[in-house]
Amino acid sequence: MRNLKLEISYDGSRYYGWERQPDKPTIQGKLEEVLSRMCGAPVEVTGAGRTDAGVHAQAMVANVHLTSLLPAEEIRDYMNRYLPDDISVNEVKDASERFHARYNALGKTYRYVFYCGKKKPVFRRKYVQSIDFVPDVSLMEAAAEYLTGTHDFRAFSSNPNMKKSTVRTVDSIKIRLKNDYLTLDYHGNGFLQNQVRIMTGTLLEAGQGIKTPEEVREILAGKDRRLAGPTAPAKGLTLIEVDY
Amino acid sequence: MRNLKLEISYDGSRYYGWERQPDKPTIQGKLEEVLSRMCGAPVEVTGAGRTDAGVHAQAMVANVHLTSLLPAEEIRDYMNRYLPDDISVNEVKDASERFHARYNALGKTYRYVFYCGKKKPVFRRKYVQSIDFVPDVSLMEAAAEYLTGTHDFRAFSSNPNMKKSTVRTVDSIKIRLKNDYLTLDYHGNGFLQNQVRIMTGTLLEAGQGIKTPEEVREILAGKDRRLAGPTAPAKGLTLIEVDY
Repeated sequence: MRNLKLEISYDGSRYYGWERQPDKPTIQGKLEEVLSRMCGAPVEVTGAGRTDAGVHAQAMVANVHLTSLLPAEEIRDYMNRYLPDDISVNEVKDASERFHARYNALGKTYRYVFYCGKKKPVFRRKYVQSIDFVPDVSLMEAAAEYLTGTHDFRAFSSNPNMKKSTVRTVDSIKIRLKNDYLTLDYHGNGFLQNQVRIMTGTLLEAGQGIKTPEEVREILAGKDRRLAGPTAPAKGLTLIEVDY
Repeated sequence: MRNLKLEISYDGSRYYGWERQPDKPTIQGKLEEVLSRMCGAPVEVTGAGRTDAGVHAQAMVANVHLTSLLPAEEIRDYMNRYLPDDISVNEVKDASERFHARYNALGKTYRYVFYCGKKKPVFRRKYVQSIDFVPDVSLMEAAAEYLTGTHDFRAFSSNPNMKKSTVRTVDSIKIRLKNDYLTLDYHGNGFLQNQVRIMTGTLLEAGQGIKTPEEVREILAGKDRRLAGPTAPAKGLTLIEVDY
């Protein structure tokens, strides 16, 4: 059996997220459909993580065990031919037998993009969330500093019954406002369900003065989802990169 | 009556072009609908030109005569609130009484974008046309040189019965290939119906060696649409700028 490593871009707008679901279009589902057809047998694709419905990816990584003897480039071309326009397989290459897209992932970068100008982001409207205020970036940065590092992020998880550890490390949160676009780049070793979206909803409140940076610190310490801000909308979020 | 100058961006994908048509969504139609509602009376919008169905604009210019006393910024905000997400009014400002978006236009810049790599342009797929060959840019440039300057462009017009002059000036055609994206920038004082699309279809043939640069010169001299290449698809074309 070969073990192939795939790099995939997708526009998540019309999908019910990464994970396969019966009778609903998902990214994993589409990839498995095309590969199973190519192989004439069911194929299972393992992703580095699961993106939510409506979330995009610039470079999701996955692996798949196959018996096909086709060169990796031909598998890529075959997949691109049969996948819809909103999913691209950027690269297929042979990986070591033991490579596992999820277990071996060391870190991930997520990007949130908002637009706060008076025009409308016509050409990027599916990847950018419009907001009707101009945030104070220095307040957001002060709040983000409290969220950087190794912490119990339970307050920023949408799964209140999580039995496993909710401790994660967020290496960096980079925030910039340029030409009316607000960008938040998160890098960490792994994120809880909805963590990036809830951190972003909370930081946006900090940027409006609704919550002070110190209150954001208290939310983290309080470990209660109800204290944090809203879950930011999926469409502004893109998985940028997975490190191995 | 005030005369307002508007700058508009739009994703032309789901429109039947700029020009108002009964019972079909068009850009002019949408703008007039929103402004007529604002004014409580029919309003006519004059564009710098007419883009085809599926063609986009980064900065179309239009003017409109109104009696409204609202500040220009509020008119822009009102329009953006009621226009769909794929049309943005970037700017509204008071212009001189005699300003006419079409008659006063001195030049226009159009951009065509193609993708010739092995991935798929997922996030730009509505604005980029994929092609399955890597063109020879130097051949395209040699052919483009013959199309630059003041010529009778009848061979590159889709209107064979055009009674008016088909002489136009194309100041420059800039072609570049970078990261698998092929970009053609046209600047001229005005273009015939489908001229940019037919020139592009012809230059792509030159880039594949289907037509030599000299043959392109002969096509221009022959003044016969049937000699030129195909009309390139609308979706890769964007009106970038109008000069006054």
